[in-house]
Amino acid sequence: MTEIKHLDSPYRQALNTEVRVIRRADGIPAPDVFTVTRGPIPSCPDGGVLVRVVVAAVDPAMRGWLSGESNYLTVPTGDVMRAEAIGEILDSRHADWHVGEFVYGVFGWQHYAAVGPAHLYWKIDLDVAPAPVWLGALGFNGLTAWFGLLHYGRPRRGETLVVSTAAGAVGSVVAGLAREAGLRSIGLTQGAEKLNRCRAMLGYDAALDYTAPDLRSALAAACPDGVDIFYDNTAGPIADAVFPLLNRGARVVQCGTVSVANWLPAPLGPRRERAMIVKRLSWHGFVISDHRDSFPEALAHLKRLFTTGSLDAQTEILDGLDAAPGALQYLYAGRNRGRLCIRP
Amino acid sequence: MTEIKHLDSPYRQALNTEVRVIRRADGIPAPDVFTVTRGPIPSCPDGGVLVRVVVAAVDPAMRGWLSGESNYLTVPTGDVMRAEAIGEILDSRHADWHVGEFVYGVFGWQHYAAVGPAHLYWKIDLDVAPAPVWLGALGFNGLTAWFGLLHYGRPRRGETLVVSTAAGAVGSVVAGLAREAGLRSIGLTQGAEKLNRCRAMLGYDAALDYTAPDLRSALAAACPDGVDIFYDNTAGPIADAVFPLLNRGARVVQCGTVSVANWLPAPLGPRRERAMIVKRLSWHGFVISDHRDSFPEALAHLKRLFTTGSLDAQTEILDGLDAAPGALQYLYAGRNRGRLCIRP
Repeated sequence: MTEIKHLDSPYRQALNTEVRVIRRADGIPAPDVFTVTRGPIPSCPDGGVLVRVVVAAVDPAMRGWLSGESNYLTVPTGDVMRAEAIGEILDSRHADWHVGEFVYGVFGWQHYAAVGPAHLYWKIDLDVAPAPVWLGALGFNGLTAWFGLLHYGRPRRGETLVVSTAAGAVGSVVAGLAREAGLRSIGLTQGAEKLNRCRAMLGYDAALDYTAPDLRSALAAACPDGVDIFYDNTAGPIADAVFPLLNRGARVVQCGTVSVANWLPAPLGPRRERAMIVKRLSWHGFVISDHRDSFPEALAHLKRLFTTGSLDAQTEILDGLDAAPGALQYLYAGRNRGRLCIRP
Repeated sequence: MTEIKHLDSPYRQALNTEVRVIRRADGIPAPDVFTVTRGPIPSCPDGGVLVRVVVAAVDPAMRGWLSGESNYLTVPTGDVMRAEAIGEILDSRHADWHVGEFVYGVFGWQHYAAVGPAHLYWKIDLDVAPAPVWLGALGFNGLTAWFGLLHYGRPRRGETLVVSTAAGAVGSVVAGLAREAGLRSIGLTQGAEKLNRCRAMLGYDAALDYTAPDLRSALAAACPDGVDIFYDNTAGPIADAVFPLLNRGARVVQCGTVSVANWLPAPLGPRRERAMIVKRLSWHGFVISDHRDSFPEALAHLKRLFTTGSLDAQTEILDGLDAAPGALQYLYAGRNRGRLCIRP
């Protein structure tokens, strides 16, 4: 469906539209992993809320949730596709959440969600930033960038940082934080438009196309003092180009693996063990939801950067849930400009 | 030469015997990487000491020092082979070091060494332990075990530890520390004798032969609660068998890479990036000489363990420098029993 009709009832539609998972994805989820179904609008659960989904996320991590292999999180076949989203509370049976409030939570790819408090992250203020920004730079993307760079990256002024998927939802926030921390930052991305965006909008000191045949020499030229922090969202051959440039004591922050389509079984790559020792590397993988204790500090920091104009928060919005089944292919093709969302 | 003759002079020989590097090693250093030469006994340098080498180390790390590839340390072709050793001070021109003292330092594979204070680590007390133990469990091996396990491994009582080259100079100390820390420890080694040593002498809760065809299933059976700390001295396929068993939040301590003969170029192995994230792993490589600040605490701890009989400190001593050129092949074949040394 493409049109949302306003009804007299507090609900804008008579039926809920839901994007459901109907099979496991092999690699990048194709549209046939999903089906768009209609069902009754759920009622507000005891102790929970009913929300209208304002805007829902399209995230690289969803590939892992849809894979048949072991992952930190799986969306079972048959379920509505899990997605973080901004919702407006239409009905509430919980004392802390009130009708009319806008809230960041896990509401899925659907028009209406009936959820308990475990699915509600925090209230957002649309006067500070529009809803899609609360899904990205001021949401888990921003928190991920903040925690990975500042906690595991341990930046020191003057060091060199390389970011893969530099123009993505996380990478663009890493860039803003890196500039504030006094790092020299090099962004790896693809295509003239994103390269320009990295240089002109995001504040990278240099941006390189990771598909260039001479990536290794270009990277070496862009990092004359080596690399102290590698914020890696890609894994695979892009990471292989960065590892030889890592300095002694460098930190590798493993945030994503988007350049590898399938991990069942894990593909082969150059072994890292020797470099780990010779270069005294530290390498950390993390999932931001483990680190809720740091969210208040991180969010305050990110809001300050955003309101002072130091944080790029570009978003691209797909219109309607019919666009949802193809959204992950679009994302993995790298065609989106800024944080990708769906407005149901 | 095999016999050391006592002379009337303070020097027990008229000439120095030196094992020199004559070419770069490709993989495990063969005897033809070295030559045994004779030269004059050096005189005591200004600001330094002349030592008689009592016992000198044979270390897995020497392969890296002899390789043509980039390493944290290289012994140039033409030089006397670098080795840590215990020496007796025969002459001194330094106020802090006195004739008759025994000292741990870098003296090389030779009878006599003339060195400055940078090559002198610390004085040892032969009443606490015999000289070869000061080269191993109470030397850099012990310090390496202590720092890797306690600092990067961050053990918590009841966790499961896997150690590769479990019966080696470092692994045997890791085992003693693990028992004291209340870990369940599984040692990977090779051959019935070392397996027995791991179980009966070193205190591992289980020991497995890493060459067994069913290593993965044996390891899974030995680690019913998964693996929280992997103290890895081998890299390669042995590490590949451990990685799938790592628990969420597990720590990988990369101490050595002895199972991979050549890193130029790095061999291929299964990529770790996805596991890093999904399991929230932390992986650290280290070289113990970076961590001198922790030596006093570590050495006090290790001495306490040794004197109470909680630290296995078995050593095997090769007699005479003529054995030195073949010592690394012997070590890498895994034929030594305990910490391997040469008595010049």
